Amino acid sequence: MAFSERVSRLKSSLIREILAAAQRPEVMSFAGGLPAEAMLPKVEWAEMPASMGQYGMSEGEPALREAIAAEARALGVPCDANQVLIVSGSQQTLDLAAKLFIDPGTEVLLEAPTYLAALQAFQLFGADCITVAQEADGPELGELRARLEQHKPAFAYLIPTFQNPSAVRYSEAKRDAVAALLDEFNVTLIEDEPYRELVFDAGSATPIVSRLKSASWIYTGTVSKTLLPGLRVGFLIATPDLYPHLLRLKQSADLHTNRIGQWQALQWLGSEKYRGHLAELRDFYRLRRDAMQTALLEHFAELAEWQIPQGGLFFWLTLKQPLDTRTLLKPALAQNVAFMPGEPFFVDPDQHPGYLRLNFSHVAPERLNEGLKRLAAVIKQAQADTAT
Amino acid sequence: MAFSERVSRLKSSLIREILAAAQRPEVMSFAGGLPAEAMLPKVEWAEMPASMGQYGMSEGEPALREAIAAEARALGVPCDANQVLIVSGSQQTLDLAAKLFIDPGTEVLLEAPTYLAALQAFQLFGADCITVAQEADGPELGELRARLEQHKPAFAYLIPTFQNPSAVRYSEAKRDAVAALLDEFNVTLIEDEPYRELVFDAGSATPIVSRLKSASWIYTGTVSKTLLPGLRVGFLIATPDLYPHLLRLKQSADLHTNRIGQWQALQWLGSEKYRGHLAELRDFYRLRRDAMQTALLEHFAELAEWQIPQGGLFFWLTLKQPLDTRTLLKPALAQNVAFMPGEPFFVDPDQHPGYLRLNFSHVAPERLNEGLKRLAAVIKQAQADTAT
Repeated sequence: MAFSERVSRLKSSLIREILAAAQRPEVMSFAGGLPAEAMLPKVEWAEMPASMGQYGMSEGEPALREAIAAEARALGVPCDANQVLIVSGSQQTLDLAAKLFIDPGTEVLLEAPTYLAALQAFQLFGADCITVAQEADGPELGELRARLEQHKPAFAYLIPTFQNPSAVRYSEAKRDAVAALLDEFNVTLIEDEPYRELVFDAGSATPIVSRLKSASWIYTGTVSKTLLPGLRVGFLIATPDLYPHLLRLKQSADLHTNRIGQWQALQWLGSEKYRGHLAELRDFYRLRRDAMQTALLEHFAELAEWQIPQGGLFFWLTLKQPLDTRTLLKPALAQNVAFMPGEPFFVDPDQHPGYLRLNFSHVAPERLNEGLKRLAAVIKQAQADTAT
Repeated sequence: MAFSERVSRLKSSLIREILAAAQRPEVMSFAGGLPAEAMLPKVEWAEMPASMGQYGMSEGEPALREAIAAEARALGVPCDANQVLIVSGSQQTLDLAAKLFIDPGTEVLLEAPTYLAALQAFQLFGADCITVAQEADGPELGELRARLEQHKPAFAYLIPTFQNPSAVRYSEAKRDAVAALLDEFNVTLIEDEPYRELVFDAGSATPIVSRLKSASWIYTGTVSKTLLPGLRVGFLIATPDLYPHLLRLKQSADLHTNRIGQWQALQWLGSEKYRGHLAELRDFYRLRRDAMQTALLEHFAELAEWQIPQGGLFFWLTLKQPLDTRTLLKPALAQNVAFMPGEPFFVDPDQHPGYLRLNFSHVAPERLNEGLKRLAAVIKQAQADTAT
């Protein structure tokens, strides 16, 4: 069988295997990024017009595009509705952007670590991934400048607000600096913001795209983390030089996003009901984060270091005594605990041992302590084995 | 702006422009392939479990995969549920297949004419499209053999049941012969069947994939033509050598298909209610087809030749005096009539003037006669202009 060259770059998905193993009900899973079942809002369908069953526009529902543009403008993103493209979850933005920009060997600039599924989507199309190290307040700026001086990436892909996996939120200063650098080197920005609304403090920072003066950009988000992921409704907003191409790529990919989910999303966006739901969601996740922090202090204080995430769904742990965390998976699963090893979030996994991503939204607080206790024991055992 | 090489192959979509123009309510549109609004079934959502709002499996809902496998087996397609992948409309099958097989210059084998959006999807990835002429009962077999002897296509993409645009249904003999040739030359078959259930006579013929002995295959279908296109729910069934790759490509494209639409599709597939709906649908479309045939006989008998379609949504007209039908669009739209020129359905449009695709499902019978009368007048005028 002669497949495309691309297929040789399809990685066996470690995540698929972990998540499959984590399906067993007895497993305490810190692996995924699923919203808590209890916080999925109850939605009504009775009022949906029958016309939503018909084919729709590739751009998406006009009213939803208007609502998304209005929300983006409120964040400082200069745009109007005809720059909004509704996508089948923001994962599709990555697929469309890869198609738009990436030939085999095309350089793209990513954070290290970065979102695993983005890395895979870009590598599938043959991207040469250049990275810049992530600090607690955003990318290391000297390194970023050096990369831009030495390379000509087709785009920079950044997740500045509660990054998956590192939970980093870029500071105001770094947002400004990154925008200025991208303008200076005329590099397109793809800014991915699934977690913006899952914020646990009063801090807020406008998107980097709102700070750009001349560079092109794509801003992408989703209702998956705040409403219902099963709807598969996300969006992108793009500068006018990019939009028409993205629209045609969308049409070729799946004609248009399902209208049922678009209609449901429209019932929520910008509404009082949605604001109330978001407030509940933040309270709920803040409690889970706090419970995780308490349990981590009990079991991981000697093993690892971490920042307390101010938003998003993850803790990112740095082991004081690094080891390949992929080797911990099997013994952890044997103890009915699942987690996400840190290595796959890097372009060069073997060079970055010793990180773990732990989701705090899924495991109920009453099982949390036991789960982390077992995970800590697995790590200690592995470190003891390595030492001997 | 440096785009991928691929983007240079993104065609300006004539269809998008036609369909946009056809949106005006005063336009009588024979251009699209939309189900009639009146025949969109009323669907219920009250029973949908809240869990459908959560993330789902990339493969699709297990129960839906079972139902689709059962229907396929009833058609003679040897498969089980773990070969079924739920996709975001069968357009996505084309995107996934293009990713799986096509590098720039990869040969693929298509019917001439073929489905426009498939042609575009394959060309986007750089396919070198080899074609075989379509006859009234399927491809010209001598030509098909010659193509397979001279080329080594990565796959053959065929629409054997009420093809879009030609409305051709392959005969039993040609189905057997095509299967034997694909086996002999070991060429993968992608069989696209959106229209199988929209059949207006007692004739039936099992899919070509059910007749293959050794070649690999992908069989794809959708609920868009029989239930609700707005759900964006389609499926593919693939041989085990292809399935794992398609699954990973699906995951990278959009994680999974929306679960709301999957749940709704499951309420219908295989049910008594669905069988009743399909019977009504066939009766409705048969009447519209008959009305179109009557009006065509009145206005096009001297201008064109055509077969009466036994299924699907289209008449395919061959002008007795060929001209570039794309030039008819503007004068037709000036008369508030839209149709689909035939040229874009060919790899080499300029070599195939003189075909029109006319949809018979959309325009109400009482406006049909007037619309076709105007279109015939536009054609006569153009032919008169050409003659002078």
